[in-house]
Amino acid sequence: MCPLTIENAPLSRLCIHTITTKPWSIEEAASQYATAGVKGITVWRDALSGRDIGKTGRMLRDSGLSVVSLCRGGFFAFQDKVKREKALEDNRLAIEEAHQLGAPLIVLVCGADPAQSLEDSRKQIRDGISALIPEASAAGVKLAIEPLHPMYADTRSAINTLAQANDLAEELHSPQVGVAVDVYHLWWDPHLEKEIRRCGQNNHLFAFHVCDWKTPTLDMLNDRGLMGEGCIPLKKIRSWVEDAGFDGFIEVEIFSTEYWKKEQWEFMESIVAAYEKFV
Amino acid sequence: MCPLTIENAPLSRLCIHTITTKPWSIEEAASQYATAGVKGITVWRDALSGRDIGKTGRMLRDSGLSVVSLCRGGFFAFQDKVKREKALEDNRLAIEEAHQLGAPLIVLVCGADPAQSLEDSRKQIRDGISALIPEASAAGVKLAIEPLHPMYADTRSAINTLAQANDLAEELHSPQVGVAVDVYHLWWDPHLEKEIRRCGQNNHLFAFHVCDWKTPTLDMLNDRGLMGEGCIPLKKIRSWVEDAGFDGFIEVEIFSTEYWKKEQWEFMESIVAAYEKFV
Repeated sequence: MCPLTIENAPLSRLCIHTITTKPWSIEEAASQYATAGVKGITVWRDALSGRDIGKTGRMLRDSGLSVVSLCRGGFFAFQDKVKREKALEDNRLAIEEAHQLGAPLIVLVCGADPAQSLEDSRKQIRDGISALIPEASAAGVKLAIEPLHPMYADTRSAINTLAQANDLAEELHSPQVGVAVDVYHLWWDPHLEKEIRRCGQNNHLFAFHVCDWKTPTLDMLNDRGLMGEGCIPLKKIRSWVEDAGFDGFIEVEIFSTEYWKKEQWEFMESIVAAYEKFV
Repeated sequence: MCPLTIENAPLSRLCIHTITTKPWSIEEAASQYATAGVKGITVWRDALSGRDIGKTGRMLRDSGLSVVSLCRGGFFAFQDKVKREKALEDNRLAIEEAHQLGAPLIVLVCGADPAQSLEDSRKQIRDGISALIPEASAAGVKLAIEPLHPMYADTRSAINTLAQANDLAEELHSPQVGVAVDVYHLWWDPHLEKEIRRCGQNNHLFAFHVCDWKTPTLDMLNDRGLMGEGCIPLKKIRSWVEDAGFDGFIEVEIFSTEYWKKEQWEFMESIVAAYEKFV
């Protein structure tokens, strides 16, 4: 398939992460997304603060939005055992929140501790996810391992390639556990096409996140680009993801100090336009 | 071999890159490095500006310093053909400079152009290096492909893992072409040990660069840490490099706005101390 000629993604598959429009409350986001014809929302946990979670889930569905996932669980890796236990508790809380909200999936940013080796962090990640499987299963909530860009290997995730995430999901071997593919983290990887195919064959391709990589990138965390602003081959990667059998929501997850400063409804119009043109 | 018990690296193998002490002229750097007992210098091309290169090389050797390499060639990847030709010219000039200086090696930062695919950039990199082999051979200068961290895949290098660099060096199959292993770029890679072994078996391990990855890293380019300040397992990686047969200079390459602001002789004392303790 020639990536330059694939059809545009339909608006019905667009999902926006609440953090993308961080200045909005979840109520404002729901109203604005729905008005713009967006059909999916991924909820960041901070957006639920102080709210009745079950009621918020109903409000989202009543607005015509599918709750795609809850962001985020994870951060399993700590040299300190007490911190690891606290992380597990927090993940159990996330599973409960996802259940109440009606979110079928939790995205896992797996964690890393610069005070220990990556190998130790990876073992703790595996043990942490493994410990959560029974509760996730009972709650009807799936868990998606999100490999993060290697520039986050010190503190955010010791899982930095799709191959590693695929290996881990295979090893854990549970219908509850799969992988989230985020173009920002993975676009550079020479094995991306092959590993997306493998992920799909394993039925582990649970989520697909998009944004863009800007040149220059001024901040390692909060300078993500709007689709089309950067160098990520979005249509090509989407074609790989779809060839691998994925037909779920395409989630726009942009952390951007610059965009958070703008009028959010203007930004959201740009998101919809960029999605229709570049994804 | 247990990495925690390996012997410290001897001072006789310490090399410093001129850019590490950027505020110093090359003449000051030579004098200060030699006084501190440093035996190797890697010369960045900007340090040669306005100088007689042959004479500068003799000055370095007369100071008791081995010229380890010239930094840097590369930047082969451009969508624009004219720019690719200019890049080749500049690399030919670098080979001539290395020859005059008496540097046996040029480090290649291979380049990337966000206006084109990584695959196109990689092809141009391969073609660029291939075109230089005859001249490098005639000048007695080797070329080291330096894989760069994936956070530089947009503009600096489309070669982002040691596996890719090894593949490329194997494909080019010339005694002139090998690889530079820099811990800053590669420490996160789950295949690093295996690929270092392969690099050594191929006789392609031409250079070894050290520094550290700080938490937090405040700038993607100029916030590298002094050895011991971060999370890179330096002794472990050195043990892999030495098990792979490398016994050359260990090169300290630190870009740091913070350190460039300090008294450079104090910084250099810290480098020597950190090298003796953490490498």
